[in-house]
Amino acid sequence: MTDISGAAPWCAVDLAPGQARAWLLQGEAVLARASLDTVPDAPDSGDVAALVARLGTPAVEAPTVISGLTGAAAPVPVPAKPGQITPVRIGPHTHALPGLCQSSPPALMRGEELRIAGFLALNPNWDGVICLPGAVTHWAQVSAEEVVSFQSFLTGAMAEALTTTPLLHAALSGVDWDGDAFAEALDTAMSRPERLAAGLAGIHAEATLGTLSGGAARARLFGGLTGAELAAARPYWLGQQVALIGPDIPARPYAEALARQGVPVTRTDADRMTLAGFNDARRRISAT
Amino acid sequence: MTDISGAAPWCAVDLAPGQARAWLLQGEAVLARASLDTVPDAPDSGDVAALVARLGTPAVEAPTVISGLTGAAAPVPVPAKPGQITPVRIGPHTHALPGLCQSSPPALMRGEELRIAGFLALNPNWDGVICLPGAVTHWAQVSAEEVVSFQSFLTGAMAEALTTTPLLHAALSGVDWDGDAFAEALDTAMSRPERLAAGLAGIHAEATLGTLSGGAARARLFGGLTGAELAAARPYWLGQQVALIGPDIPARPYAEALARQGVPVTRTDADRMTLAGFNDARRRISAT
Repeated sequence: MTDISGAAPWCAVDLAPGQARAWLLQGEAVLARASLDTVPDAPDSGDVAALVARLGTPAVEAPTVISGLTGAAAPVPVPAKPGQITPVRIGPHTHALPGLCQSSPPALMRGEELRIAGFLALNPNWDGVICLPGAVTHWAQVSAEEVVSFQSFLTGAMAEALTTTPLLHAALSGVDWDGDAFAEALDTAMSRPERLAAGLAGIHAEATLGTLSGGAARARLFGGLTGAELAAARPYWLGQQVALIGPDIPARPYAEALARQGVPVTRTDADRMTLAGFNDARRRISAT
Repeated sequence: MTDISGAAPWCAVDLAPGQARAWLLQGEAVLARASLDTVPDAPDSGDVAALVARLGTPAVEAPTVISGLTGAAAPVPVPAKPGQITPVRIGPHTHALPGLCQSSPPALMRGEELRIAGFLALNPNWDGVICLPGAVTHWAQVSAEEVVSFQSFLTGAMAEALTTTPLLHAALSGVDWDGDAFAEALDTAMSRPERLAAGLAGIHAEATLGTLSGGAARARLFGGLTGAELAAARPYWLGQQVALIGPDIPARPYAEALARQGVPVTRTDADRMTLAGFNDARRRISAT
């Protein structure tokens, strides 16, 4: 097989729900990037090959490391150190990262543990809570480079589903944002999380009656969802320092909501964490 | 115009979110029925005409009464007596019912007030709470034939949206039902409604790991949504008698959940309430 430890180019493939991305690298230098916005929930080697082809890889097949929705290897139960998880060989040129799982409460992380490994590689000896917003948002308690436990929320996928539902679509389309409406909905949801469906009916009613702006409607949806999640994740962030790993969408509502609770939040560059994680994984493959 | 009070056939059209239905009647006798499962959120006269055409109406255009998503007339603010709302003439042969609205909390009911009018016509002097499950579920406090206030929840549309979201679709498709899982999720949601998104992430994780049956997944989704709604609607049902107007889907989870709280629940035949409401409205049109 091709040697991933050498100077030859290699590929990193990140299969996240709703977005697959790939990088062509030489050492740690990025030679090319590609992405696909339509990813099946269980992508196969054909999906990976289609994505890698977009990188314009050399004629000799490049060694490839895949993270995310591979389903190629049994996930590692927590507590576990993301920086020590061994990528599994799944083909002559290909390794896959197995993800993390937890038995109680039942939870599964596929891909985010790579970003945690990247963050910890760049921030040695960091203890605290890492929040990774996405279609599924994960909160991971990290101590001594180990994910001790994590809690997952389907908040991002809920927001996406509710935005496209016929009764709310007209009210929620657009890009405006009403910061005051977000703060108010957040506070309401943290104290009365059971009122989520009532808040959505209110959005529908007011939008139908023409008394609600698109910016307020979107802010109320995200305020309601984020507030409920923060109320449920309180044991994770209360009295902790929190690192947020994710692009501005979907991370920004979390940053605003946590700041509003007085929680010290570190924003990070998600792409940088992802690449640091892939480089970390590549070093482990080379060492085996 | 055609006389709706006479012996000639007339049409009743109910435009609900996701389902439009029509009846051809002579007096109170049903001559024909038709339905459409794809209804735009703001149906127009063309949609109504297409539905009415399915009834095989006589050559002379029949007088028609429309309820639901017409948007043809300003809704009536509560408190209001559904049995005294005057249908509005919107065409030479057509009347529309205007719906109910409430300023605080902002809420809008379009069509369900017709079923309430039908229920009250069939149950004179009934006081209590009427729950009408649907894409938007309404809880109406009824006293002296008047809707004093109501509270709406987008629970049905949420269930539909979440069932079709890619991350949950495989787990939730099917028709199985696990009653124990429903009861457990219901109790959890009533005490910890903020955990809805965590529960959905759990469904996704366990279904992906192959440790969750479809019946348990569906029961958990509906238990979580119904439990949160019951927690929020507690002032409506606590210590009250509740009449449920709706077909088995979506009414059954509500019936099970309310029975579990010890609330006396009356199930009703939604079609019968709808037709009683239309007949009631027709009598008011004739009297004008």
